[in-house]
Amino acid sequence: MAEFMTETEERSSGVLRPGTAEEPREQTGDTGGPLDAQEAAVQLERTRALVDPELRAAVESLPAAMRRIGLYHFGWQHADGSPAEGNAGKAIRPALVLAAAAALGGPAARTAAVRAAAAVELVHNFTLVHDDVMDRDSTRRHRPTVWTVFGDTDAILAGNALQALALRLLAEDPHPASAPAAARLAACVVELCEGQHADTRLEQRAPEAVTLEEVLAMAEAKTGALLGCACALGALYAGAGEEEVAALDGFGRQAGLAFQLIDDVIGIWGDPRHTGKPAGADLAARKKSLPVVAALTSGTPAAAELAALYGKPYPGQEAAAGEIARTALAVERAGGRDWAQAEAADRMARAMQELARAVPDPEAAGGLLALAEFVTRRTS
Amino acid sequence: MAEFMTETEERSSGVLRPGTAEEPREQTGDTGGPLDAQEAAVQLERTRALVDPELRAAVESLPAAMRRIGLYHFGWQHADGSPAEGNAGKAIRPALVLAAAAALGGPAARTAAVRAAAAVELVHNFTLVHDDVMDRDSTRRHRPTVWTVFGDTDAILAGNALQALALRLLAEDPHPASAPAAARLAACVVELCEGQHADTRLEQRAPEAVTLEEVLAMAEAKTGALLGCACALGALYAGAGEEEVAALDGFGRQAGLAFQLIDDVIGIWGDPRHTGKPAGADLAARKKSLPVVAALTSGTPAAAELAALYGKPYPGQEAAAGEIARTALAVERAGGRDWAQAEAADRMARAMQELARAVPDPEAAGGLLALAEFVTRRTS
Repeated sequence: MAEFMTETEERSSGVLRPGTAEEPREQTGDTGGPLDAQEAAVQLERTRALVDPELRAAVESLPAAMRRIGLYHFGWQHADGSPAEGNAGKAIRPALVLAAAAALGGPAARTAAVRAAAAVELVHNFTLVHDDVMDRDSTRRHRPTVWTVFGDTDAILAGNALQALALRLLAEDPHPASAPAAARLAACVVELCEGQHADTRLEQRAPEAVTLEEVLAMAEAKTGALLGCACALGALYAGAGEEEVAALDGFGRQAGLAFQLIDDVIGIWGDPRHTGKPAGADLAARKKSLPVVAALTSGTPAAAELAALYGKPYPGQEAAAGEIARTALAVERAGGRDWAQAEAADRMARAMQELARAVPDPEAAGGLLALAEFVTRRTS
Repeated sequence: MAEFMTETEERSSGVLRPGTAEEPREQTGDTGGPLDAQEAAVQLERTRALVDPELRAAVESLPAAMRRIGLYHFGWQHADGSPAEGNAGKAIRPALVLAAAAALGGPAARTAAVRAAAAVELVHNFTLVHDDVMDRDSTRRHRPTVWTVFGDTDAILAGNALQALALRLLAEDPHPASAPAAARLAACVVELCEGQHADTRLEQRAPEAVTLEEVLAMAEAKTGALLGCACALGALYAGAGEEEVAALDGFGRQAGLAFQLIDDVIGIWGDPRHTGKPAGADLAARKKSLPVVAALTSGTPAAAELAALYGKPYPGQEAAAGEIARTALAVERAGGRDWAQAEAADRMARAMQELARAVPDPEAAGGLLALAEFVTRRTS
């Protein structure tokens, strides 16, 4: 669980599209399908078209050193400063901002919320730059991470500048929702920090000392909070009332947890051709991901076997294949995989309830639903 | 110059008070005196009384881990979580916010600006926590720095949370100035990041390759910017127009540069009993402070001697006293000390001009003047 959910997300290239030979696993089983996937893909492309110019203008406004690092991180420049094609991730969070605004306020609200969408994306990327420093992750979106290219100090400074830029965008936005949106986004940053703190602490503790409740709380703070915040900001820009804003925040949080659960399943049983990581890399790193902690706390004989395996350091690549397969099997036999899939389905059901509270009209809710389905149905 | 100006400030305990046996050096020479010092001391105490409750409530509002680190950093708790007396620094920046608000808008504006003053102090402390990580400084305000107690990761996270808290305070402030104030504070954070980047880069370069212009630009971004921003925020909360806001920003920037110049002089020739550091510690660390770069670029024979000394690593404590004394003498003979004092006087004169533009009434300007005198007249 030291992996931020988005690392797999940002790594993965096998986005589910209609007509793809691979069918999604029926993880949540009750809603959506190929049409939703198509709808989500359309939304994500549209979001990039709307938000990228705002995002890029903001990064271009930074002073020289911070600008160079920002342009590198978003994939608009190579490390030497020459232009690059850009690979700024899938834009799920800004898409949620725009979809929430549209669901409650129609196209005008969607247009008004573009700056807020860029602000959320800047916050997301600030946390990615910093998390990579803290976790010593060396690859992001198939490129060397900022700290490996520019060093720790500049990575920390550039992350700080991206956070400031996000809040400057909102402070300069004359829309009446900009102040409550900024307050909410700043509060979310605090929650993300607490979540990252909890994550690093959990990773330092003995596997048997970690409870499922703790890992779920950490995942909500680290992953659910910003997805919830994105939806809440969209609602604010649509002029929604407090209850609708809270319900959309809840929708994003629950969908975010479902996403994390599926991401953790993929981190163990995902196809390396799609994840871009060796099979079972999360197990090799002894990560206390949600399926693993569910398995460890299951009280089954397989839990004891898993605890013994996790108690030993990773034996290294030669002995790896057999050890990883045994570990994955132990998680599965202890019920970790089934639990994670059932829990993801439960979180998605809760997300749907929150969505129905905020947006009773199923047609208006369609965009948000499609995005939630998209993030929890990836096969890689 | 790798030292953030405030490090000596926060370290120093020898605040000049009337009746102190030591007289300040006549560094700027043309204004102020013991009455100003008394006035400044009164303002700083009053600022603490007004701003501390707001600041503490903000830090207390953080979730558990971030709160604990924040309370430790501000001196309100020991590392074990037990209560401490508090030693949150001299509050120069929040005092500037309140003095600027009062100068342009009277007592009502001062009261209205308390939250903005707390926000500026939070930003200042966020940069202190991060700079200590980057510079590996182990002592701050006579206590172990956050990273030495909680580790790098938690220090970075807590700094991030303090930045977010600052901008949340402004976003939640219903005052009409809060949005432009937040935009300005966020832009200032970006400038501080660029300044810290420039500082770390300058320290890595060969002494003879660094120009005075570069070091001055770095000092303005790293030190002047936040003092200028503090004054500008006070002006905004007084409902001042663009020109007055810009003039007060200029006042703070120039006073900040004067402060940095004096701080650098103290870093070489200051009394260790007051600075809390061994004599010449900045020289031992081969810091490219303003007097040193002025000396190195003076084209004098002493400049060559200084370059040779700076080209060698510090010989260690046994050989130190003689080497430090020789280095300090070379800086002095190359004109570094005289230049820094003249430049500080020049910057103070420019600050006075900006102040007179924004606040023509000398009585109304008295509070800001006293603070500027205070920060540039310290003997330690």
